[in-house]
Amino acid sequence: MTNLEVLTEYVSAFTHSLVEQGVKDVVISPGSRSTPLAYACMKQEGLTTYRQIDERSAAYFALGLTKASGKPVMLLCTSGTAAANYFPAIVEAYYARMPLFVVTADRPHELREVGAPQAIDQVHLFGGHVKWSTDLPMPETENQLAFLTRHLHRALQNALTNPKGPVHVNVPFREPLRIDFEQHYESNREISHFGGELTLSDDSSLFLQQLFKKEKGLLIVGEQTQKLPDEFWTFVEKLDWPVLADPLSNLRGNVPQSAKKFIIDSYDALLKSTQFKENVTPDVVIRVGPQPVSKPLSLFLAAIQPETYVVFDESPMLRDPQSVATHHIQATEHGLWQVPLESKPPNAYRKKWTQASRLYWQVVAKHCQNELDEGVLAKVLFDRLDQCDLIVGSSMPIRDVDTYFQATERDIMLYANRGANGIDGVVSTAFGVQAAKQRPAYLYIGDLSFLHDMNGLIASKMQETDLTIVIMNNDGGGIFSYLPQSQEERYFEELFGTPTGLTFSNAAKMYDAQYLVAETVEQFASALDEPKTASVKIVEVFTDRKNNVTTHRKLWSCFDEELAKQ
Amino acid sequence: MTNLEVLTEYVSAFTHSLVEQGVKDVVISPGSRSTPLAYACMKQEGLTTYRQIDERSAAYFALGLTKASGKPVMLLCTSGTAAANYFPAIVEAYYARMPLFVVTADRPHELREVGAPQAIDQVHLFGGHVKWSTDLPMPETENQLAFLTRHLHRALQNALTNPKGPVHVNVPFREPLRIDFEQHYESNREISHFGGELTLSDDSSLFLQQLFKKEKGLLIVGEQTQKLPDEFWTFVEKLDWPVLADPLSNLRGNVPQSAKKFIIDSYDALLKSTQFKENVTPDVVIRVGPQPVSKPLSLFLAAIQPETYVVFDESPMLRDPQSVATHHIQATEHGLWQVPLESKPPNAYRKKWTQASRLYWQVVAKHCQNELDEGVLAKVLFDRLDQCDLIVGSSMPIRDVDTYFQATERDIMLYANRGANGIDGVVSTAFGVQAAKQRPAYLYIGDLSFLHDMNGLIASKMQETDLTIVIMNNDGGGIFSYLPQSQEERYFEELFGTPTGLTFSNAAKMYDAQYLVAETVEQFASALDEPKTASVKIVEVFTDRKNNVTTHRKLWSCFDEELAKQ
Repeated sequence: MTNLEVLTEYVSAFTHSLVEQGVKDVVISPGSRSTPLAYACMKQEGLTTYRQIDERSAAYFALGLTKASGKPVMLLCTSGTAAANYFPAIVEAYYARMPLFVVTADRPHELREVGAPQAIDQVHLFGGHVKWSTDLPMPETENQLAFLTRHLHRALQNALTNPKGPVHVNVPFREPLRIDFEQHYESNREISHFGGELTLSDDSSLFLQQLFKKEKGLLIVGEQTQKLPDEFWTFVEKLDWPVLADPLSNLRGNVPQSAKKFIIDSYDALLKSTQFKENVTPDVVIRVGPQPVSKPLSLFLAAIQPETYVVFDESPMLRDPQSVATHHIQATEHGLWQVPLESKPPNAYRKKWTQASRLYWQVVAKHCQNELDEGVLAKVLFDRLDQCDLIVGSSMPIRDVDTYFQATERDIMLYANRGANGIDGVVSTAFGVQAAKQRPAYLYIGDLSFLHDMNGLIASKMQETDLTIVIMNNDGGGIFSYLPQSQEERYFEELFGTPTGLTFSNAAKMYDAQYLVAETVEQFASALDEPKTASVKIVEVFTDRKNNVTTHRKLWSCFDEELAKQ
Repeated sequence: MTNLEVLTEYVSAFTHSLVEQGVKDVVISPGSRSTPLAYACMKQEGLTTYRQIDERSAAYFALGLTKASGKPVMLLCTSGTAAANYFPAIVEAYYARMPLFVVTADRPHELREVGAPQAIDQVHLFGGHVKWSTDLPMPETENQLAFLTRHLHRALQNALTNPKGPVHVNVPFREPLRIDFEQHYESNREISHFGGELTLSDDSSLFLQQLFKKEKGLLIVGEQTQKLPDEFWTFVEKLDWPVLADPLSNLRGNVPQSAKKFIIDSYDALLKSTQFKENVTPDVVIRVGPQPVSKPLSLFLAAIQPETYVVFDESPMLRDPQSVATHHIQATEHGLWQVPLESKPPNAYRKKWTQASRLYWQVVAKHCQNELDEGVLAKVLFDRLDQCDLIVGSSMPIRDVDTYFQATERDIMLYANRGANGIDGVVSTAFGVQAAKQRPAYLYIGDLSFLHDMNGLIASKMQETDLTIVIMNNDGGGIFSYLPQSQEERYFEELFGTPTGLTFSNAAKMYDAQYLVAETVEQFASALDEPKTASVKIVEVFTDRKNNVTTHRKLWSCFDEELAKQ
């Protein structure tokens, strides 16, 4: 075989093998060194290719794709700092446990660390923030396809083994960087895979059955990027415990009417109330998914130190930041819904939560008629959504979901980057989610986070999309006004507020996006109702950081007053 | 001492000690965890603070600052993916050997790897791309200041020891995140530093003296971010060898009239000519600085395999990508200008280069009257510059400097990010250079590179600046049209051209920048001559990728024809 034939066969086997194993999407950034593999991706049947010029945005886009599709997604870039730009999204994917399959093209060994251009040390480039990393052999020798396909299998199954996460494959190429487009590839001796599952042990099942008999139990559900199965709802109804549903649990959309009373969507606000907290100390707490967003919930658990606090986590790296857990069940949570449940009398403890929650939403309804802040505006958005996905920023937006997003039967799925909670890459993740779901998506985001990943908008020039972006522009870092730093006036604006004075009408023009602006609830509502005339619609709302804090706090104290009257 | 007192003293000692050791600038990105150190930076006398919301841009801005100032620059960010965003610029700084002092705030040990928000594994986060990395102790114990100041000394002197490079200091902070602004800090037992220098050994000096006697010698000067000293020019005049001056050697600006004949500023073009190459085989080549940009030069050296090819490199990691060097002098190049030189008869070999170079510039002058492409436009820009700095993109712009930037007495310094040659972060580096130099700066950049770091423009909203940005908008990746990939039409636009259709008038509006557009030489010249009315002036020129290649190649073949006539 000629060099060209060997190289062509190698990259064909590469992409073919990934597709065989379930990779459907690849996000490619332009570059020279990656040429043979980029060609193979374009040629490969069954692979959808996306392009992004900014590799940082590309990786966050891939993260959105994999989050929403539940499938591993391949990234491909050229050698040099291009690869380093993937790092933030890789870190996020590692903590969010998302299977990114990161492929970096590299220079051959004789051009590494010798002062050659665009050559950096890419071996283990992402350190401990990938689950596994390998440096592949040069595609220049015959008879290495069996190894190659099995090694890609190792990499991919590493990414897909629970807890999932990113892996990194570094591939050196020597010039000339081309393939023979006419060469036919016939796969041979590929490997098939049967995965195992971390099921509940008999011991843990019996243990859980005992716990379920308790009246004062709480089920906490953290982030779930895939909908929980139907048997979850049967289980919840039988269990009759309050289910504290994190904004990302995806238990606030698609909620069956009959199950609404179990879903406590207001616990973040409820647990701010001292009088409420005092009356709801649980005996048992069970958590699935990562630690919820809510700080009041974390403080509550740390304060009461529940006698039994069971955390489901498939990883030995138990997620328990307050060190409160008493039991770690290292198994998939799906076994939980199948634990046999005895029928029980109606649960007064659960009712206490449901009633407080109902009261909270009455207070919210009243509050929203009189007050105006980002949360109230957010509710206007939330109340309109159906048959769509909502991606929210990691800072104040996710907290406003906690405060203002009421459980609904409407079909809404929620996503955010809460693995490491960065404000970076959120725009790209939203485009990625939309690309995976192929239905309208909404991004609810602050001005700094939007600005940080404005390059995410490049996606709209590269592919079809349907995204509405709601920017809460409070000219700076809104969350800091809620933190103790805000009590110190010195340097507050320089270090925390960091106002840029930027607005985004011109950004919208640059990207041919529809643009609407709002300063009142009415303007905002009509901006949302305005028919969509472009693939990206931007609604920018100007708000005030200080006012947001006052108004949020007013809601919480109103609830406290109403509760006292009961 | 109270915890507050201990923390205040710790961060005060931190910033005081860095300033004592020569740090003058810090670039801060907003965040909560870094609060105590951010306050200390704001308070610290002798420290200039810059702010950037996008950490990727912040790090590239710091890179520009350190490049142009020759001083180490501190970076400060909060915990989480914020730190990961520094990675591309850190990689660039590592290969460009620039002393970035990277400080990342971290969560305390009990919040690491336990599922806490915004906590990632920051220990050795940047792997092998920093020279050294340390995780500092919690600022909660008295009597650790002597250790702290010495450890910061170790970190900083690591960054400043040749070859210079980035270092990383990770600092954990526990809540509450505040300091006592009134607390006075008195430094005590700080450490003073006397650095050594890697001087020429007597052996190497004698060896060089012998080499200097040869007639057919070439001196190649790669990137120099600081001007070479005056004795360099005396040396060059006595040596009477052709000096091949890389665009980044900073030997094309501030050239004494009498020395112009020695500076060969056209070798990239000359060495494309087979007939020229055949007549100029050298016996000795000496290189200082990294490998030049020019590919023809690299190919020439690899082809002729000079009998003696001496490379100066302070690092054991000899930069010699073609493996052609015969001697490695591991010492600072400043000793070279002091090697005694005997007076010699006029050098016919040097004259051959000077004459060819003169002929080349005559051909360029004629070519520029008839033809229009990015290079010709670039020359219009270059010919106008004086008392300013020019920052150029790493892809085609730097190559157009090689082709079109003629050595001049005018005061121009040139900068580019050629450590790893990424197209990322260039806008920010330009703002950083301008901030360090405090005089007008020009950025000459392609559309993709500009787009990649559009967030660099945020700097213009945070501080005074004076930057003119010339964007060559050929709607995509121009350099690929020069590469073999362009001969394959399939997928060329999707993978390499990657046109976005974006133009930048609205980006200019968004950032209140002056904006001018040009499509002809005349329009371009008058856009440049238009008085500057804002701190950032953007001149966007629309060019054609295919035409650029044709026109560049025409220039080179014209030169070949003229040379044949001689």
